[in-house]
Amino acid sequence: MQPKIEVGILGATGMVGQQFVKFLQNHPWFEVKWLGASDRSAGKKYRDATEWRLGGETPEFVADLTVEDCKPGNAPRLLFSAMDASVAGEIEQAFARAGHVVVSNARNHRMDPDVPLLVPEINPDHLRIIPTQQRNRGWKGQIVTNPNCSTVVLTLGLAPFRPFGITRVIATTLQAVSGAGYPGVPSWDINANIIPFISGEEEKMQTESLKILGRLEGDRFAPLPAKVSAHCNRVPVVDGHTVTVSVELAAKPSEADLRAAIESFAGVPQERKLPSAPARPIIYMNLPNRPQPRKDVERERGMAVFIGRLRPCPVLDFKFVALGHNTVRGAAGAAVLNAELMVSEGMLD
Amino acid sequence: MQPKIEVGILGATGMVGQQFVKFLQNHPWFEVKWLGASDRSAGKKYRDATEWRLGGETPEFVADLTVEDCKPGNAPRLLFSAMDASVAGEIEQAFARAGHVVVSNARNHRMDPDVPLLVPEINPDHLRIIPTQQRNRGWKGQIVTNPNCSTVVLTLGLAPFRPFGITRVIATTLQAVSGAGYPGVPSWDINANIIPFISGEEEKMQTESLKILGRLEGDRFAPLPAKVSAHCNRVPVVDGHTVTVSVELAAKPSEADLRAAIESFAGVPQERKLPSAPARPIIYMNLPNRPQPRKDVERERGMAVFIGRLRPCPVLDFKFVALGHNTVRGAAGAAVLNAELMVSEGMLD
Amino acid sequence: MQPKIEVGILGATGMVGQQFVKFLQNHPWFEVKWLGASDRSAGKKYRDATEWRLGGETPEFVADLTVEDCKPGNAPRLLFSAMDASVAGEIEQAFARAGHVVVSNARNHRMDPDVPLLVPEINPDHLRIIPTQQRNRGWKGQIVTNPNCSTVVLTLGLAPFRPFGITRVIATTLQAVSGAGYPGVPSWDINANIIPFISGEEEKMQTESLKILGRLEGDRFAPLPAKVSAHCNRVPVVDGHTVTVSVELAAKPSEADLRAAIESFAGVPQERKLPSAPARPIIYMNLPNRPQPRKDVERERGMAVFIGRLRPCPVLDFKFVALGHNTVRGAAGAAVLNAELMVSEGMLD
Amino acid sequence: MQPKIEVGILGATGMVGQQFVKFLQNHPWFEVKWLGASDRSAGKKYRDATEWRLGGETPEFVADLTVEDCKPGNAPRLLFSAMDASVAGEIEQAFARAGHVVVSNARNHRMDPDVPLLVPEINPDHLRIIPTQQRNRGWKGQIVTNPNCSTVVLTLGLAPFRPFGITRVIATTLQAVSGAGYPGVPSWDINANIIPFISGEEEKMQTESLKILGRLEGDRFAPLPAKVSAHCNRVPVVDGHTVTVSVELAAKPSEADLRAAIESFAGVPQERKLPSAPARPIIYMNLPNRPQPRKDVERERGMAVFIGRLRPCPVLDFKFVALGHNTVRGAAGAAVLNAELMVSEGMLD
Repeated sequence: MQPKIEVGILGATGMVGQQFVKFLQNHPWFEVKWLGASDRSAGKKYRDATEWRLGGETPEFVADLTVEDCKPGNAPRLLFSAMDASVAGEIEQAFARAGHVVVSNARNHRMDPDVPLLVPEINPDHLRIIPTQQRNRGWKGQIVTNPNCSTVVLTLGLAPFRPFGITRVIATTLQAVSGAGYPGVPSWDINANIIPFISGEEEKMQTESLKILGRLEGDRFAPLPAKVSAHCNRVPVVDGHTVTVSVELAAKPSEADLRAAIESFAGVPQERKLPSAPARPIIYMNLPNRPQPRKDVERERGMAVFIGRLRPCPVLDFKFVALGHNTVRGAAGAAVLNAELMVSEGMLD
Repeated sequence: MQPKIEVGILGATGMVGQQFVKFLQNHPWFEVKWLGASDRSAGKKYRDATEWRLGGETPEFVADLTVEDCKPGNAPRLLFSAMDASVAGEIEQAFARAGHVVVSNARNHRMDPDVPLLVPEINPDHLRIIPTQQRNRGWKGQIVTNPNCSTVVLTLGLAPFRPFGITRVIATTLQAVSGAGYPGVPSWDINANIIPFISGEEEKMQTESLKILGRLEGDRFAPLPAKVSAHCNRVPVVDGHTVTVSVELAAKPSEADLRAAIESFAGVPQERKLPSAPARPIIYMNLPNRPQPRKDVERERGMAVFIGRLRPCPVLDFKFVALGHNTVRGAAGAAVLNAELMVSEGMLD
Repeated sequence: MQPKIEVGILGATGMVGQQFVKFLQNHPWFEVKWLGASDRSAGKKYRDATEWRLGGETPEFVADLTVEDCKPGNAPRLLFSAMDASVAGEIEQAFARAGHVVVSNARNHRMDPDVPLLVPEINPDHLRIIPTQQRNRGWKGQIVTNPNCSTVVLTLGLAPFRPFGITRVIATTLQAVSGAGYPGVPSWDINANIIPFISGEEEKMQTESLKILGRLEGDRFAPLPAKVSAHCNRVPVVDGHTVTVSVELAAKPSEADLRAAIESFAGVPQERKLPSAPARPIIYMNLPNRPQPRKDVERERGMAVFIGRLRPCPVLDFKFVALGHNTVRGAAGAAVLNAELMVSEGMLD
Repeated sequence: MQPKIEVGILGATGMVGQQFVKFLQNHPWFEVKWLGASDRSAGKKYRDATEWRLGGETPEFVADLTVEDCKPGNAPRLLFSAMDASVAGEIEQAFARAGHVVVSNARNHRMDPDVPLLVPEINPDHLRIIPTQQRNRGWKGQIVTNPNCSTVVLTLGLAPFRPFGITRVIATTLQAVSGAGYPGVPSWDINANIIPFISGEEEKMQTESLKILGRLEGDRFAPLPAKVSAHCNRVPVVDGHTVTVSVELAAKPSEADLRAAIESFAGVPQERKLPSAPARPIIYMNLPNRPQPRKDVERERGMAVFIGRLRPCPVLDFKFVALGHNTVRGAAGAAVLNAELMVSEGMLD
């Protein structure tokens, strides 16, 4: 049994940081040894610096760690970034410059032309951009990102259909409140209500998804030559983003073709049995009114995307509904799976 | 001041029936004089036959009326039907056969080739099918219907765009629980959850909307030659169906063209100042995150449809969000406005 | 017809300020002419300074008023204070010192020994402390307060029982999210959840209620010699605080005595037909499962308190449930009714 | 390793039955071999007879079992009853008469003078009534019951205080919708609302709790000589009943005495390490605003009761808040723990 790899969390006291702590508890490869946060928290024990907002109380395995400033120094080589976008950009670069491997959930560098925007089941080869990134920037370290929480649900839902030539996609999201962080959406605004707007979200879905589903050609990313249109809505759901999708496919497959593609879909994380990889990344539910966020989102530790109601679309070719856990598969779990892929590639050796 | 027209309500004790009672309170033209319900309720006072489920207590103006069997006899000529689809079909026909004017919210006859499916701002001329209906069926009475609650929001939202040639529409609904009637959706299923399926709803939206937006050519309806694709979802909202819409328009108008079309849209109910007609049937909201069901749906007595976020769609031409009150503009209020239109046409003389 | 009395709102851009604006729309006696807010907003038009969070859009009657600094100067004599407690204390005093009549919803001065904590149906005579207040403080102006939003529901619910000698009260609240202001409670915390704690609320209910139900003896308040114990909870409800109450009564009345006391309860606002006074301040609902916040709280413009389920308590004497609108009867409407009472007393002449 | 004890479930297809199935999955002692339901379901496979309403899909370990009529015959000796009260009474008796050990969640026999109403940490000795029950009724089998879901939270919350002499209790519940079964509470009624009434619930809490906390004296139960008053409310929460409690204690202990009593509280299930027993049946949470149903109720597999905010009560002696999982500790898990206690007593030998 190998010693575990020491890891740190940038932005550990916030909501996303707490999600990382929870997800990394008992991780077989990674051991949380370092917690970074703002000046205000630095120097305190994690249990004192943090108002724990998830279930139960602050987990014991980190409760007595002292929170550090988010500055390179004594941090482990591998760092997960749970920082808010308002500060993540420069801090992540500082750590990468100092030689750290930064696996980030922040949006700042996702669309950079030399930064992988990774969904390990879809585009693991995008990691091959890293030498270019290091050369461009003169870094020993690196930054790897995962997509926006609604984008990961959409792209995993579409991934099995790639062989049939995705050309046009219209998606409407019904996004949980946990996607807005903390304090996030005021209950006055969302209780028994719908907010038909999430700032910047539609743009992210429309651009990030094409990068993810696109190809790495030499040292540049060629986005998928398709059109994506997103309608984003906040709904009074705790966890789990639901997405309704209509899709046009160049090869005009049958419904049976698509069902077979979903059933057989798997990726590198499944082949390599990465610790956080679900046995099957996409699970089709046959029940007529599923998947549903409250009832299904916690299955498979929140790491699978659930698909249901695949049927012909009178306007494009097919339509379906997809569901994924926004703070797990769409945030902390996504980043951890990215890091596991990188370990399996020998990038942390 | 003319005497009021006496009206009755078929299915008066149920949830939709209660909505009719509430909406008809203090109506300037109509006076509720007759309440029909199932055998179980017949013979009781309305206050005793009804478990009042709306705000406050059973309205006094009907509380002491005796509930009657749903059989022709002493009912007024003009009847609103709030009956459940499981029984509405035959009972409405029996009343029409007996000479009554049945203005129905039930789905049973909506798609009959000789029954108007009416949205007074869109297709008031569809009433001209009535002589054909009466001839076909040998009736002195008649049946007129209003659309399904999500369809009316979609069609009113699209109505201003008709001059630009609507060819393809993809719509996703976020529908309130009141749309499912009573007891409707169990709270166990919908609390903090999404149900991505409503039985029969997508089919209704995909067919009813084309009939409504289509033309009456002689004695037959020619549906709009367009394609509509619907994704229907139940959400934990009390009242108000939100619909996200992407639309393709043959004439390729500018966004300014569409905004102008929305601003200037009005119909016969507005011209004639029908009592339940909103001053403007479609209201565009400029706030970036509106309309919202809980905050906007009660405006204009629930009779307007609110539009927001009109913007280009990367896949079709434009996209926007629409909101309407499902139990008012999508049910009781719709039927009452239909009856007001019919009165203004002299059809109740 | 008399000219209207000009009024201003301190803290007009916040959530409570918006509630004042909404409640004062079309008020027969008062006309909003002045809106004060923080430096950040001063100089802007109200429509630009305010993110309107209630239904519809910013009301036209105030939208073009220019927001002023919260400093005495050109403000009308009568001011409603909707300020946050963090700043209300000193600003209200500055205005009172400058001769203004400050009718405040803030908590800062409620328990001051020379400030009335007014519920016009219960203790209108407490206004007689004002000369003492002015003498003590050397003011020409004055400060009058209304209670905390849960306290007003409890005290109005108990008011009819005062003749029977209230000695002990145990109350549990189920408080709506609007009671926490804006942004208030994060949706992450309250969606499908209960928070069994509201900072400072139990203390307020336990002390404010005894001052309100107590007597003004000469120039000092004698609190009711009773014990009140409160358990305060936040619940996922939009508007309306529900309170379950067990009460001990010295005179050991019968249930019929109490029902009669509720039915006949009225106060000075009803006698004088003040514009915001409900016809009956306390309405008993006979339905077995009412009152309910979502269904009943908007009745009577939110100014009545609803009582239900009066029954014997095995531990104290009787128990019942009470409901009131926390942002109307518990905030803006309470203050406006206070001002109306003061006008009717000639205090604004 | 011993062979597992075969068990059956009466009422297996309903909501409570599904909770039993879920809770018994992978149980170390019990193996579900028999599923009984109404005539309508009998003869079908469980997966076909059941509309699975919990997370995921119908568990595989029971999906292919054939559902049987609820009649004695081939059922195992040990049966869990998840039947609705409308039918449970007679069917349970028929099975007990036929020699079965019926461990029931139904309310029908709870208050029978010869039936134990068991909370294993509180009154395990009440099982000693069984010979009397069998003698009275001429049965070889027996019926053992667990309390109503809100009663179990109240009684476990009070249990540590028994040594101090509980004399008076006032409790207000905030009960989750899952407590009402399925379809249970219509979402129209409870969405963003409070229903301040649950039929029969207050009576159950006021009587069941005294039986549970009372003593078995010879062959009769002597209820605790105390007074309990309950206010029961339904709230829009999925799982978990919250109860606010004020309690009078004859011995006038200090707060520290009570905290110590809570910390040291354990019972027979903990001593014997019964498989479903939580390590500690009552967990005190120090965070100021906990326990909260959505965040805490799933901890300890739903088998612990969480206490918070212990503080002096101005009217009685102390007050606190308690939380428990109504469908686990208050239903399926309670019955399974009862059966484990019975096995550990040798009653299934």
